[in-house]
Amino acid sequence: MKYALTAALLAATSTIAFAQEEVDAPSYRPVPAENLVIMTLESGEVVFELNDDFAPGHVEQFSGLVSDGTYDGEAFYRVIDGFVAQGGLADDRVEAYPTLTNENDRAMSEEGFTPLGNADLFAPEVGHMGGFPVGRNAEADLEWLLHCPGALAMARGNDPDSGSTEFYVVLDAQRYLDRNLTVFGRVLSGMEHIQALHRGDPAIAGGVIQEPEVGDTIVSVQMASDIPEEERPNWEVMITGSEAFEAFKTSKRVRNEEFFYRHPPEILDICSHAVPAREVE
Amino acid sequence: MKYALTAALLAATSTIAFAQEEVDAPSYRPVPAENLVIMTLESGEVVFELNDDFAPGHVEQFSGLVSDGTYDGEAFYRVIDGFVAQGGLADDRVEAYPTLTNENDRAMSEEGFTPLGNADLFAPEVGHMGGFPVGRNAEADLEWLLHCPGALAMARGNDPDSGSTEFYVVLDAQRYLDRNLTVFGRVLSGMEHIQALHRGDPAIAGGVIQEPEVGDTIVSVQMASDIPEEERPNWEVMITGSEAFEAFKTSKRVRNEEFFYRHPPEILDICSHAVPAREVE
Repeated sequence: MKYALTAALLAATSTIAFAQEEVDAPSYRPVPAENLVIMTLESGEVVFELNDDFAPGHVEQFSGLVSDGTYDGEAFYRVIDGFVAQGGLADDRVEAYPTLTNENDRAMSEEGFTPLGNADLFAPEVGHMGGFPVGRNAEADLEWLLHCPGALAMARGNDPDSGSTEFYVVLDAQRYLDRNLTVFGRVLSGMEHIQALHRGDPAIAGGVIQEPEVGDTIVSVQMASDIPEEERPNWEVMITGSEAFEAFKTSKRVRNEEFFYRHPPEILDICSHAVPAREVE
Repeated sequence: MKYALTAALLAATSTIAFAQEEVDAPSYRPVPAENLVIMTLESGEVVFELNDDFAPGHVEQFSGLVSDGTYDGEAFYRVIDGFVAQGGLADDRVEAYPTLTNENDRAMSEEGFTPLGNADLFAPEVGHMGGFPVGRNAEADLEWLLHCPGALAMARGNDPDSGSTEFYVVLDAQRYLDRNLTVFGRVLSGMEHIQALHRGDPAIAGGVIQEPEVGDTIVSVQMASDIPEEERPNWEVMITGSEAFEAFKTSKRVRNEEFFYRHPPEILDICSHAVPAREVE
């Protein structure tokens, strides 16, 4: 009975391997070591890919801070359930670092955009570029990275160009933050360790955790490029322009499994299915 | 600097108190003790409200199992990040319990529905009834509870009427499960303890956790109605037909805070903002 139930509900999982047709073109691309971040929390490792295509200034500053060990031993000091987990220095030391010009949107690229294939509630069009969920407005000639679960973005004050060191990871989707803050990466693996962080009380000091011993420590953060090549982890991300990714989306959109005795609407939410990533030898 | 940053990003939180105009009508209703469930996990308490209006058969069976202590000492044995946390008996004992006729939709009610006020990707119309997110199809004369984060629903085999004891809590929204499985409650508080559960590997046995010591124990589950009145917790939920709830939705839809130097689209996702609930004396 156990396996009947679990195998049946499994049909609905968002992470199950899908029936992929054999394709000649490559389905995955390696993540450059310069964009691969390994963050060790007390409960396990979180792996990020930085996006230096959309947010080169943010990636340069963040990866420099990581290489310098700035975040080692710091904490996720503001974690609000269903909203974001914010980490960094959490004090006056922030002022020592340069502020960043926002990179929260840009002119539309001519190539590299793969449409999702259905409407979106928040943007005129949505799809993927380089493994990241993207919104577009052709009329305004704009494209931007989305605040989907696992997005890595830079906190700021009211000045849109005031971010510098304090980053956050999106828990549930926060699409109204799109184009107001700069997304510069995403979680490839280990989101459960972000979700396991202790929560602050949003009614007290904006959710800043009041008892330091409760704040979850960022044990260390490393750029893969700072790890000797033979020791560094290697990650690949599905190519969002590939046939494999179209097959992946179809497997989530068209639910033909016997389990679905009622055929769900053939719709995808751009934030619902993270682009697959995998560790390789 | 800390508070500049945190207060600023706070403007965007989904749980911050909102500017509520004084209203004469009540804004909150008490949760009946018969529908209030207190689940103690190893990391803390999760509070649920059951929905005996949409799913009376499921609520009757589930609350009976809770009262009998059936789930005490069992586990969330199948937890897939971003999908669901499934708990219950996980073995042949399930077969001893009666299967339930699905209650995954019903004819539309004449009263009690409060429209969200904008379009939805998955349903012709969405809104709230009695504090729960609801989808509607007027043409088909149907309404149903939604698989938003925190929804409590019953797992089943391929037969739509095969659920009995194995329940799941939705992590990220899973709207394609709507009308295929029966939602019969929702989390009012403590979602962070569900999110803190260990994850299984979806590639192995459908995400069933393979090392029993890693499965997170359900220490106890109690119906509030089984606790002496002077000891039982009391919870209230915002009345979704109230002016307070309209003000709450407006506060999430219209972002006039200085922090939002770009005005986000005035759109709500039905799954993005849980109806407020609070514990009272």
